[in-house]
Amino acid sequence: MKVLDQLYEGKAKRVFKTDDDQLYMVEYKDDATAFNGEKKGTIAHKGVLNNKISGWFFNRLTDQGVKNHLVQVVDDDHQLVKRVEIIKLEVIVRNIIAGSMAKRLGLEEGLVAKTPIIEFSYKDDDLGDPLINRYHAQALGVATKEEIDTIISEAFKINDLLSQWLDEANLILVDFKLEFGRTPDGTIILADEISPDTCRLWDKDTREKLDKDRFRRDLGGVAEAYVEVWRRLQALDQ
Amino acid sequence: MKVLDQLYEGKAKRVFKTDDDQLYMVEYKDDATAFNGEKKGTIAHKGVLNNKISGWFFNRLTDQGVKNHLVQVVDDDHQLVKRVEIIKLEVIVRNIIAGSMAKRLGLEEGLVAKTPIIEFSYKDDDLGDPLINRYHAQALGVATKEEIDTIISEAFKINDLLSQWLDEANLILVDFKLEFGRTPDGTIILADEISPDTCRLWDKDTREKLDKDRFRRDLGGVAEAYVEVWRRLQALDQ
Ligand SMILES: Nc1ncnc2c1ncn2[C@@H]1O[C@H](COP(=O)(O)OP(=O)(O)OP(=O)(O)O)[C@@H](O)[C@H]1O
Ligand SMILES: Nc1ncnc2c1ncn2[C@@H]1O[C@H](COP(=O)(O)OP(=O)(O)OP(=O)(O)O)[C@@H](O)[C@H]1O
Ligand SMILES: [Mg+2]
Ligand SMILES: [Mg+2]
Repeated sequence: MKVLDQLYEGKAKRVFKTDDDQLYMVEYKDDATAFNGEKKGTIAHKGVLNNKISGWFFNRLTDQGVKNHLVQVVDDDHQLVKRVEIIKLEVIVRNIIAGSMAKRLGLEEGLVAKTPIIEFSYKDDDLGDPLINRYHAQALGVATKEEIDTIISEAFKINDLLSQWLDEANLILVDFKLEFGRTPDGTIILADEISPDTCRLWDKDTREKLDKDRFRRDLGGVAEAYVEVWRRLQALDQ
Repeated sequence: MKVLDQLYEGKAKRVFKTDDDQLYMVEYKDDATAFNGEKKGTIAHKGVLNNKISGWFFNRLTDQGVKNHLVQVVDDDHQLVKRVEIIKLEVIVRNIIAGSMAKRLGLEEGLVAKTPIIEFSYKDDDLGDPLINRYHAQALGVATKEEIDTIISEAFKINDLLSQWLDEANLILVDFKLEFGRTPDGTIILADEISPDTCRLWDKDTREKLDKDRFRRDLGGVAEAYVEVWRRLQALDQ
């Protein structure tokens, strides 16, 4: 496997072509941003930790039959993934009200949703990733009805699986963001990452935040939180 | 039928109790507001026109089997309706992109949606009627899954019927807002009104606006537009 040109440098990862035109190499970075890039910083060892954590989740999801882009975790901060055409939606699943939803709907952070909530944001930085629904997505041509049906059912299934694993790690899965992609044959598969950058995770006993909100809200102990999540997930494999 | 105490005075209508505790009397007013009540005015004869126009649509919908609150148009500015518990959702259907959706998604007004779009706003003036989706509505306890399924299928059916009738009147149904309610036995029925206050209607040939946007955007000829819509609908009955 030869790594070729960099294709894309995002806020948290770099994506490289490889000599297999169906595969990309992803490099996880220590850079962290929040509030649409307004706040910038680095979190020590985040790249390595998120590469391992995301790899852990994607491998477990593969075992449960959830189609995804991971081929393998290659080294400390690289993973090999299937090339997909990313669907321009941030797919957010919420079990507990927090963050932007709490603010927008005047709800207290920590309120348990009666049923899991799925939200779509239209991935468009210039528009500020506006909240849309499935009908907007279809009408805009972002995805077809069938693709959206698949995304919704996969997202709920992933929520059930992650919630269960994290519960075993004494963590509450408050909410998380997923991205899906289209393979060349048109199959919808899970892509991008699942990590404390993209999930809200609270300790089940203390409700302490163990995710990027420590960075967003200047709570300190950011790197330590990521280490703790990885420690707890590894313990599940013992 | 005896009209009793006023129950509620809204921006466009007054609602009165009657001596039948299952029925309300609704009075249509000439008052008009826009932008969450920031802009205020009156439109000559709007009450009478909207009472007639809304009555026309609801009677036609009844003929097509769409359950709704209308009992009968009583006089120029009153109609008798079934009392319902209003579901705290503004149900918006869009065939052509205009207004807030055009702005939020950076789209040109007039773009034809590939498929009709349905949107929910959470009816809460303090929060500014925020855009939500079906999962938020369920999680907030605004309506059950089954109720939302009913609302969505009724809204699409109503869109098909209205679009067809308005097309015969040489009008394009750009978008419109519906409200639904629960009867005491839990049935979901269409309530509130359907009028140039709650629809965007464009002339099919000239694309001239014949609705409340004339008031919102100070285009003049507001009352005349409402008269013209009523004239065209009546002509369909000849
Ligand atoms: N399997 C894949 N194939 C192609 N692109 C992918 C794949 N998985 C993730 N990506 C994309 O690679 C980029 C990852 O970089 P990063 O997460 O740093 O981006 P970002 O700063 O969040 O930017 P963006 O807003 O574009 O997602 C994202 O744009 C993501 O959508
Ligand atoms: N059949 C019905 N039974 C009970 N309430 C109804 C019925 N039909 C409509 N309503 C309610 O009566 C009120 C009508 O008044 P109007 O349209 O002027 O209100 P509004 O200013 O738009 O206020 P709101 O934001 O509360 O809807 C609305 O609150 C509407 O939801
Ligand atoms: Mg990203
Ligand atoms: Mg109203």
